[in-house]
Amino acid sequence: MSSSESHAADQPTNAAVIPPVFILVRPQMGENIGAAARAMLNFGLERMRVVDPRDGWPSPKAVAMASGAGRVLDQAGVFGDVPGAIADCDYVFATTARGRELTKPVMTPERAMEHARALTAAGKRVGVLFGPERAGLENEDVVRANAIVTVPVNPEFPSLNLGQCVLLMGYEWRRQTVSVPPQVMEMARTEFASALEVEKLGDHFEERLGAAGFFYPEGKVDGMKQSLRNMWSRLGLTKAEVQTFHGMLRQIAFHLKGQGD
Amino acid sequence: MSSSESHAADQPTNAAVIPPVFILVRPQMGENIGAAARAMLNFGLERMRVVDPRDGWPSPKAVAMASGAGRVLDQAGVFGDVPGAIADCDYVFATTARGRELTKPVMTPERAMEHARALTAAGKRVGVLFGPERAGLENEDVVRANAIVTVPVNPEFPSLNLGQCVLLMGYEWRRQTVSVPPQVMEMARTEFASALEVEKLGDHFEERLGAAGFFYPEGKVDGMKQSLRNMWSRLGLTKAEVQTFHGMLRQIAFHLKGQGD
Repeated sequence: MSSSESHAADQPTNAAVIPPVFILVRPQMGENIGAAARAMLNFGLERMRVVDPRDGWPSPKAVAMASGAGRVLDQAGVFGDVPGAIADCDYVFATTARGRELTKPVMTPERAMEHARALTAAGKRVGVLFGPERAGLENEDVVRANAIVTVPVNPEFPSLNLGQCVLLMGYEWRRQTVSVPPQVMEMARTEFASALEVEKLGDHFEERLGAAGFFYPEGKVDGMKQSLRNMWSRLGLTKAEVQTFHGMLRQIAFHLKGQGD
Repeated sequence: MSSSESHAADQPTNAAVIPPVFILVRPQMGENIGAAARAMLNFGLERMRVVDPRDGWPSPKAVAMASGAGRVLDQAGVFGDVPGAIADCDYVFATTARGRELTKPVMTPERAMEHARALTAAGKRVGVLFGPERAGLENEDVVRANAIVTVPVNPEFPSLNLGQCVLLMGYEWRRQTVSVPPQVMEMARTEFASALEVEKLGDHFEERLGAAGFFYPEGKVDGMKQSLRNMWSRLGLTKAEVQTFHGMLRQIAFHLKGQGD
């Protein structure tokens, strides 16, 4: 029994991951609570808690600002103090820019959300504390966290507001948990040209340019042709673009022929 | 001569890197221009350009919102159109969330700023286009960019405002270019305890707990002691915390002795 309990606690579970809860501590302006709700939902986070909001709860200004993200506010838990708000959390991050007279790990948002991903994947509950707009978190709040998160801002201009801090943490959470290809090619309706089509375009250009006396002087002809072939292959042309180039060449040839007549 | 020119152009230069210029295209509200200036300076970026701002230039509302980041606005270049604003750029990113009927690479902010770092390190000039608040960039703007950047937001709630988009791109630029340790230990005035100090603390606890009859039953004593030793080593205690624990043990022993008398 004791051994099976310990097994269950140590092993990652297959249960659905519970995303981090973002906890706004003593927020002052309703607008900022609403902006935080929007920033959370931008990155797929919906679990908000609010500790002792200055202007009470529910907050009409928060609702107005949140617009499409109103459900984050509707579902938000309201708590009287930080210990109550984090009671069910297994691991708590405190976001703060200021140095503290505390011995505590300080992580970048990147490392913090990487750690949060690992914790949540193992079935743990993660909370992230955000301080009030002006003063930020008090030491009394920070000592209750397992780790500090500090956004590596320009030390000469470090001011981030509540909504921005929530946005960056949400961004990092999503970056760590949702796999997105770092680069894709956005396709128009057309498809890319095949190597054969590119080769034929090169032939067409060589033919027309040769007839126009473009390849000169003799000693440089091979190099010029090689550069053009290299360019056509590098450009990543679509089928439609290859046809456009063929059309240009034909039209110019037709026009020149007409002039010559 | 031609060979040395080509050498100079191909090789990374040792000249100071020119950071990307952030180009706000037809911005509407001065407040948003000011918020963008703040977000840029938060991450050490100072080069802003503005294309055809709706309410003219300079913008008193932008200046009021920018507060400490006013110099970003003071130094900003103002242009009549996008081609003018990007004329000296070697590579241009267009930030946009919407799908386009254009064949163009689409990158995450991470990949885009990684690429921007490589380009600027090679002496190239990089521009990043941001669209107006409501509509975003027009296709007419996007076709002039080398690549599209799209923030991987929640597809069900993708709305990012101008200031947020600038903030995230600035964050990624700084993340890609300024090396920050992912995790450090913020130190109080004290230092961490040495292994010997931790060992002696373990001895002190074993001694007091043994005297109090804590280690029971006999068959589990070794395991209990091992668990405690493991905990002391794992905790990463400071010298001051070790002294605090010694003091606790002594005080409790003294108190119990007093009771016994």
